[in-house]
Amino acid sequence: MSLRSATTPVDPRTDLVLERVVDVPRELVWRAWTRPKDLMPWFCPKPWTTVACEIDLRPGGKFSTTMRSPDGKDFPNLGCYLEIVENERLVWTDLLLPGYRPASNVGMGFTAILALEAAGKGTRYTATAMHRDEGGRKQHADMGFAEGWGKALDQLVAYAKTMGA
Amino acid sequence: MSLRSATTPVDPRTDLVLERVVDVPRELVWRAWTRPKDLMPWFCPKPWTTVACEIDLRPGGKFSTTMRSPDGKDFPNLGCYLEIVENERLVWTDLLLPGYRPASNVGMGFTAILALEAAGKGTRYTATAMHRDEGGRKQHADMGFAEGWGKALDQLVAYAKTMGA
Repeated sequence: MSLRSATTPVDPRTDLVLERVVDVPRELVWRAWTRPKDLMPWFCPKPWTTVACEIDLRPGGKFSTTMRSPDGKDFPNLGCYLEIVENERLVWTDLLLPGYRPASNVGMGFTAILALEAAGKGTRYTATAMHRDEGGRKQHADMGFAEGWGKALDQLVAYAKTMGA
Repeated sequence: MSLRSATTPVDPRTDLVLERVVDVPRELVWRAWTRPKDLMPWFCPKPWTTVACEIDLRPGGKFSTTMRSPDGKDFPNLGCYLEIVENERLVWTDLLLPGYRPASNVGMGFTAILALEAAGKGTRYTATAMHRDEGGRKQHADMGFAEGWGKALDQLVAYAKTMGA
């Protein structure tokens, strides 16, 4: 019995993808995504900030962040990890709460897959957001997925270079 | 880093639970839940029948069944496995499609947890259905969760006794 995870190909009608090769090793990218103290410095495109983060890094575990707008409003996000393959693959969704419990108030309504591959001394970084329908994709695209996730990645790279191995 | 799964306690506002000790070993209960040929004979309370079943037994894998009503109407169900611990624990949801893709048309909208524990030569069988809200729980209860899952379990036990080890 194989317990390797099942994945599906990208569906351009519902999915948004950010793919880039960055010049930091994937172990540091992984750390930046999986430890609150290493996530908070880069996770929100400035001038937004991340003011809280909880990570229970196991299937069914909590992934929560609170983003603060420049005028001081807080926006909490709560999700559930689905799959964790260290340094390689992180999957979570906001359709489920911790413990796989269905969320009653869903935010954006997406599953995110972060895939990391070694690329020389750097990392091929692929972030995929899968939405319920074309409307969900469009809403996320209009909110600035490409720019927001891209700018956050710039911040991650800059931060990772200060982390040390 | 622990990869044991995170679970949450039962919430009586949103969850339905069927718990019973049955006199078949859990290995047979597991087989009855995880192989199409061993699931189809018992899965629907008669006179309903299960006319199709696909199982891709891994996290993110497909779990689909088609139920046929006594007057010949087919009702397909499509879900995604979240967690698989052989002979112990099976978790799936219909809020996600295979590959963890968010479902656009959600059926009942629940995550199911099947927990099996050895109890003498038998099995303590606990099936929990977690819904998005109290309305979802009520709808499922009114549709006959307790009777339906209970009768299916009776059928499972009767079938398992014909399976051999």
